Amino acid sequence: MSGSEAVRIVEVGPRDGLQNEKVAVSTETKIALIEKLAEAGCAAVEAGAFVSPKWVPQMADSGDVFRGVRRKEGVAYPVLTPNMKGFEAATAVGATEVAIFGAASESFSQRNINCSIAESLERFRPVAEAAAERGVRVRGYLSCVLGCPYEGRIAPAAVAEVARALFEMGCYEISLGDTIGVGTPRETAAMLNAVAAHVPAARLAGHFHDTYGQALANIWAAYDEGVRVFDSSVAGLGGCPYAKGASGNVATEDVVYSLEGSGVSTGVDMDRLIAASRFICAALDRAPASRVAAALAAKAA
Amino acid sequence: MSGSEAVRIVEVGPRDGLQNEKVAVSTETKIALIEKLAEAGCAAVEAGAFVSPKWVPQMADSGDVFRGVRRKEGVAYPVLTPNMKGFEAATAVGATEVAIFGAASESFSQRNINCSIAESLERFRPVAEAAAERGVRVRGYLSCVLGCPYEGRIAPAAVAEVARALFEMGCYEISLGDTIGVGTPRETAAMLNAVAAHVPAARLAGHFHDTYGQALANIWAAYDEGVRVFDSSVAGLGGCPYAKGASGNVATEDVVYSLEGSGVSTGVDMDRLIAASRFICAALDRAPASRVAAALAAKAA
Repeated sequence: MSGSEAVRIVEVGPRDGLQNEKVAVSTETKIALIEKLAEAGCAAVEAGAFVSPKWVPQMADSGDVFRGVRRKEGVAYPVLTPNMKGFEAATAVGATEVAIFGAASESFSQRNINCSIAESLERFRPVAEAAAERGVRVRGYLSCVLGCPYEGRIAPAAVAEVARALFEMGCYEISLGDTIGVGTPRETAAMLNAVAAHVPAARLAGHFHDTYGQALANIWAAYDEGVRVFDSSVAGLGGCPYAKGASGNVATEDVVYSLEGSGVSTGVDMDRLIAASRFICAALDRAPASRVAAALAAKAA
Repeated sequence: MSGSEAVRIVEVGPRDGLQNEKVAVSTETKIALIEKLAEAGCAAVEAGAFVSPKWVPQMADSGDVFRGVRRKEGVAYPVLTPNMKGFEAATAVGATEVAIFGAASESFSQRNINCSIAESLERFRPVAEAAAERGVRVRGYLSCVLGCPYEGRIAPAAVAEVARALFEMGCYEISLGDTIGVGTPRETAAMLNAVAAHVPAARLAGHFHDTYGQALANIWAAYDEGVRVFDSSVAGLGGCPYAKGASGNVATEDVVYSLEGSGVSTGVDMDRLIAASRFICAALDRAPASRVAAALAAKAA
């Protein structure tokens, strides 16, 4: 397996996942989950969000979580910091990688973060500048890259424009999110083609939701376009498997199974990953929204 | 859209799907389901199985179902006929396409149909010969092409050998089934490469189960290898979405959504397909094992 074939898994369950679960989990459980995911071999584990607890009560303890995690060498622990207040709080507890998040859709930006795309970029700029000064890496999230709940389809050129702005602002990587999970493989490829004209594919990550069952097929379409970093969520955290229209992140187990089964190295150990999956599902008292986890559990039963 | 891009959907819900559901449905419901699926635009609708009712009680009324269906011109209605008794019964009610089924795994053949692969092929031969004489088309199913519950991985060469035998016996198409849903995209591509050395890709169909969440990614891998026919099951019939280790066929809704969204024509109308999905889910009192159907229902709610 050549290095250029291998994939880097950015595990987003402890933040993007838990933030969208109805059941709250303790600080200790979050710490244990993050440690288990790092031990399983995930290249990065999203560890929290330094945002207003009014917006996201599930992440109010991110400082305590971050301080409590025994960090593993070589693993990145990015945290969300939408503004300078969040950035200061994150770096105060030792964060060395932060993430900012914009939208490719004007309507979504307005409704989700209450400002235009251009305004959101201006808000992120001081964070990016402070990060550069202090040697903190910045990851950029871009949402609604294949569709928006208010606008429908999003033009690839619009995605490319915001991705370029985030890249030029200093983000070392842009994670392109199909937030509502509506995209299909060829739409994914077309969008990536447009973005890659401005940001090298090696600087892009795919962040797919499985709402319409397309996530894994889209990951492979992105892989074929040269993307080698994928965000995923252990147990598919973030969308209840038994809820109508479950719309969670693609499950890390399913992504790792697919890639490793196809000879693409992820560095993730499936047994340890499944152990982390069982751990958090037990804490949340829910079944995994991972077909692989469900199939392995049925096989073992 | 060029003709060589388009995909032919073989809807297997009324047979492969219902045969594996716990709840039995009436003859009238089966007839209505088959008619709705044909009206939705499926190129073929598997309509029943002429096998011993001791083996498959759910298909005991296949003769009545077949007689009751108002057939739509241009749509194929294949039925399973493992032996001459089944073939005679099927043709007696007007079947013009039958299917025979072998396995790529010796152990699976022994445990599933109680004979070796070679013996199974000899059993099918008179069916294939009688079909040729009477102008009846024969489709071949091959199971366990990417893995076997008893043997694990199956060598692509072994799959190719049985596929060739079925093709040489007169099957106009060989449907390659990942019966336990364990295959990944590159394994799918490797298997198809081996088979295509003996049977033209234009004569192959993909039949994927979503047990490990790989079905749609495998369909796209097969598409990239030139396969243009896919078996799928409306509402993912054949595996309960709420059962541990649900192992049903990939849902037709999800396949059609992915292909049409990517500009690949299937001829299937999504609204009518969703109507058929709702109809059979109501009859079975279950939720659809289709992400698309679930997402659309949640959106409408």
